[in-house]
This record gives sequence, C-alpha cells and structure tokens, in this order.
Amino acid sequence: MQRAEPQEFSRVLSSMCTEPHPTARAAAERFLATNPGDPGTYESVAALEREAVDLLGQVAGLPDPAGYVASGGTEANVQAVRIARNRASTRDPNVVAPASAHFSFRKAADILGVELRTAPLSEYRANLEAVVELVDDDTVLVVGVAGSTEYGRVDPIPALAELAADAGALCHVDAAWGGFVLPFSDHEWDFSDAPVDTMTIDPHKMGQAAVPAGGLLARGPELLDELAIDTPYLESTSQVTLTGTRSGAGVASAVAVMEELWPDGYEAQYRCSQANADWLAAELGSRGYDAVEPVLPIVAADLPDDRIAALRERGWRLSPTEAGEARVVCMPHVTRSMLREFVADVDDLADGRGA
Amino acid sequence: MQRAEPQEFSRVLSSMCTEPHPTARAAAERFLATNPGDPGTYESVAALEREAVDLLGQVAGLPDPAGYVASGGTEANVQAVRIARNRASTRDPNVVAPASAHFSFRKAADILGVELRTAPLSEYRANLEAVVELVDDDTVLVVGVAGSTEYGRVDPIPALAELAADAGALCHVDAAWGGFVLPFSDHEWDFSDAPVDTMTIDPHKMGQAAVPAGGLLARGPELLDELAIDTPYLESTSQVTLTGTRSGAGVASAVAVMEELWPDGYEAQYRCSQANADWLAAELGSRGYDAVEPVLPIVAADLPDDRIAALRERGWRLSPTEAGEARVVCMPHVTRSMLREFVADVDDLADGRGA
Repeated sequence: MQRAEPQEFSRVLSSMCTEPHPTARAAAERFLATNPGDPGTYESVAALEREAVDLLGQVAGLPDPAGYVASGGTEANVQAVRIARNRASTRDPNVVAPASAHFSFRKAADILGVELRTAPLSEYRANLEAVVELVDDDTVLVVGVAGSTEYGRVDPIPALAELAADAGALCHVDAAWGGFVLPFSDHEWDFSDAPVDTMTIDPHKMGQAAVPAGGLLARGPELLDELAIDTPYLESTSQVTLTGTRSGAGVASAVAVMEELWPDGYEAQYRCSQANADWLAAELGSRGYDAVEPVLPIVAADLPDDRIAALRERGWRLSPTEAGEARVVCMPHVTRSMLREFVADVDDLADGRGA
Repeated sequence: MQRAEPQEFSRVLSSMCTEPHPTARAAAERFLATNPGDPGTYESVAALEREAVDLLGQVAGLPDPAGYVASGGTEANVQAVRIARNRASTRDPNVVAPASAHFSFRKAADILGVELRTAPLSEYRANLEAVVELVDDDTVLVVGVAGSTEYGRVDPIPALAELAADAGALCHVDAAWGGFVLPFSDHEWDFSDAPVDTMTIDPHKMGQAAVPAGGLLARGPELLDELAIDTPYLESTSQVTLTGTRSGAGVASAVAVMEELWPDGYEAQYRCSQANADWLAAELGSRGYDAVEPVLPIVAADLPDDRIAALRERGWRLSPTEAGEARVVCMPHVTRSMLREFVADVDDLADGRGA
C-alpha cells in the first residue's frame, strides 16, 4: 500500500471519467464523512443533494425536477428501467433501446427480469422504423441515447419520446456522458425538447465532479415513488435509491463544481474538447486512417489492431470500440499537447520505429 | 455552498457510519480520481481491490476469497440475492430471512422479483423452527444476520447454513456492521465456522474506511460468475458489480485502514466500544429505563418518546428502533465522554429542566 500510486491521467484516452475539478475535489474532501442515504442524521449533505438535483434540472431543461445523485450512470439506468417496470402492469415487460445503448441496460435486464430488445442503428443512431417494429403492448420503456458511449451520437429523442407516449411506455434518455456538453449544441435531447420522463446525467463524467456522482432525473416525484422502500431505524421513512449508505463526497463535489462551471465554464470546456476532437480526427484522417466524424468530443479511428496494441505498450490507456476502432474520449484532462504526443507515437509506430 | 458544512460527529448516536480513520482518509484523498470499475485503465486501484478482498477474507475466515468492494451493504445484499436467484432454476424463487434482516432485503426482493419470507424471532434472533417452516423447494437463499441493525444480535449461523445446504439453497451472512467486531467475540459467524456461501462485510462501518466501501465475499469465483455481464469498450471483458464506474477512494481507504488496524487495532476498538455500550446500558438501567443487553456494541433502551424527541431537539442524532426504543450504536466516534454528556442530558430532561 505504501508504494501504490493512482494512475496518471497523462495517457488516459478512453475513459469517460476525468480528474475532478479542483473545486470538486475540495468539496469531496470536506464531505468525505457524510451519508446522504441517512438524511435525518446527515442533514447538510442531504440539503446539498436537493441543490444538486435542482442544478441538474437546469442543465437538462427541467424546472422543479425530481431525482437524486446516484453512484453513477449504471445505477441511474437500472433505476429508470425499474421505475418503468414497477409502474406498468404487464407480467412480461420489455425495454426497447438502440443497439448503441450502454451495457448497463443489459445489466438492468438481468437484474430486473425484463426483456431487452435492441434496435439496429442507421449512421450510428437509433433507426426509428426498427424501434417501431420492436415496441408492443408489453413495452414499458423506450430508451434514447444522447451522446453514445462509442461514437458520441444523439438519437432522435423527440421522435422516440412520441413513440413511447403512443405506446403508453415511459421514455428514458441516457445522457450520462453527453449531458454536460449537449446544452451548448443544437441537438434536441432534454426535457424541454420532448416529453422525456427520466434521464441519466452524470456529474462525474463531463461534469468534472468526483466519483461517485451520477444523476437520475425524473419529470415528477410520482415516478420516484415507484422505487420507494420503507426504512425503519433511519430518521427518514423511505428510500428510493438503489444503494443505502451513499457518498456525501460525490454529492458535495457535484454541487460545488456545477455552481462553479454552469454554464460558462462547461461551455468553454465543451468548445475546447470539441476542437481537440476535430483536430485529432483531421490529423488521423490526413494520415489515411478512417475517422468517424466527432459529432460530440469522441473520436473513433480505424487504426490497425497491432498499432493499438503497440500504443498500449507505450502506456496509452486506449480501448477499442466493438468494431475495433481506437476510441479517444476528449475529456477535460485530454489536452491538445497530450494528443500531439499521441499522434507523434502513432507516426513513430507507422515508420516502424519499434513498438 | 460556501457556507454548507458537514455535520459534526459529536452528537451522532444512531449511525452505522463513522469518521474514517486518518489513514483511510489520506488514502481516499489520494485515490479520489480512480475507477476500479475500469481495471484496464485504472490498474493500480484494481490491484488494491484484490488486496482489499484478500484482507476481508482474513477477517471473515475465508482463504482465497472471491468478492469485490461494493458501494455498501445494500449492494452486497442485493447481489447475494441475485447470485442465488440466477443460480437456481425455479421460476418462483423465495428468500428466507429473519425478521431482523436489514430493509435492503426488501429492496432486493422488489428489484429482483423474488419473494421475501421473514421468520419471527426468539430473543431477537432467528427462530430456527420458524425458518424451517418457511423453507421449501423454491427457496434459493437462507439469510443469517451477524450483528443485527437494531440489537446487534447474531443468528445461529451454523444451523442456518446447514438448513440452506439441506434445501439446496445458498446461505448468506449479513455481517455488514458486525464483521469487524465479531472476530474478537465467541460467536460462530464466519466462513470457517459454517458452510456459508456469501457474506456482506463493510469496511466503511466498524472497519473505519471512507464511504463508499462495502464488501461482498463469496466462497468461490463461480458464485460471482452468476453476476457477469459482458463489457464492450472497457479493457476488461466482463463486470460483476451492480454499479459501473466505482469509487477508488473507498477501495484505497479500505486497504489502508485494514492494513493498519487488522487485527490489533480493530480488537482494541471493539473492546472500547463494547465497554462503552455496557456502561451506557448499565447507566440507563440504573435509572429505571429497560435496556436490551448489548451483546455487541449497540444499546437499545426504552426511553419515553417525548424524551427521545427532546434529546433530538438538543442536537442528538438519535433514531428509534421499530419498537420505539432509543438506539445508540457505539461506533468509534462515540466516546465515553460523549456518552456522559448524553446521559447528563437524559437526566436533565428527567428532572424537567426543559426540552
């Protein structure tokens, strides 16, 4: 333990986590010994959580939001599926999601005993006709992704929400990663753009909060009520979260950084990250590697497998898409100079100057 | 946010969380920006997690343990039920637990779609005959509590494990709170005492780690395999945790504090906490308040409801048991001088000197 050191971020390219903003780190350290899961005892962090939800509502176009700070996007996605399942009366519930949906929906399906139906994509986005084909009377939830994990694509959220409403299902938007960049784009993705019911939007990704700070938003408290379990021996009387004891550090850091950066600081970061992604895609493209257009700040480029392996040997934390492309997520810690070094290594390897 | 302050622990009496040990806090701060949910990218914290599980195995009498550091006891309990459900072939699974089982088993039942059957207690512990009556061919899990939330009682774990084995079910022990005090008692509770299959044992309770650091242990890796979901776009290939991104701070703090305190430091803390509980029970008993014998360091005493309310008015974070007793969990931050102040306030209120 004495010698164990956390990794440096200087070569982390494929993570959707990042270094917390200094303001977020300071707040996390101050609130390390608090538990918003027990709001009667830990009152001040419980009040901060209500602030966090209000701020997330501002980011996602939802006045007077319901929700809570979750352990991360997986919990928020699982809980959205659970709300939809519990609210419906079918004994054979299914969830319809694009093939680009995060693997946490497969986890949710196993945990909750629902069928996950995945619709094929067109141009990396949900194919609406395919979604229509899959929706039936037992569909309890239609999922749209706003900033997909592999290619940063945004599904046609208004059309998906309409489809869900027509089917008597809920509509969930997974903006776990995209939520803190999309407000500065032209995409239609949030509660003000469409009748979305629930959303995953994580402060600890592009929001620059400290882990664990995921976000679950719901249009109204009655949706969260679907999750309520009675809680004896706590001063509160019921609990809607998936976990029990929770991290006050995550909550406090989320509030601190959102107060600091929303909206101008986040907009500046988005523009910087997007410029980096555009630059990297162009550099790789000019060298003859196919790069998928970075609609949001994620680059997927078709480097040969052995090149990816050699880059990993050089310390780059680089993981491939399912299709095998090298995937670079332009998080705040991914700077232009870091990308220049990366491209120099790509060139070096292409010249055959050793692995 | 500027003015928000975390609560003081000087009047927190009913929480099962505590101030992290200084070693735990330092490690948490160092590893704040790490994610053991992505072990390919965050290698050093992933290695620490393996150490954490090995150390937990030492505490719980299990050489070569399988398991992971969970968000807390709720996640670990939910996952134990999920393992048992997924492993079994019945379409109508039930879980048998004593009425003293933590409310997270009710949460697990809702989430996982299993029936929770609760057996009545005798002397605050599982009544074996009542458990036998509830177990049938569809029972996938028998739960025993080792250190119950309200009264710190330990169920007859060897008998429950035998019952489970006879029924072809798994046996899970919830030692979320008790796991770091029971090794110094005469109770039979761990993997070396009985054929236990899974266990919840939380470093962030009596283990003095920083939240979030719960623990799930399993006798063998094949039990964890029941939870595995494929993970594209991470460098690892599958994930058994309930959540995705996870807190490296919790993991690192758990390793640091277990290395520091296991076993001598924990034994000293147990003896101190137990002496405090015995003292408090005797003091309250001598004043005519019925106090349940503190088998482990938890005191439940029959103060009048209005007295409990008045103590809360004075800032004591005190919550009642379901039966209405005042419940004091003698965590490491609960010192003798703090308890003297508490008893003085009890006396003061009994003398009618105001609320």
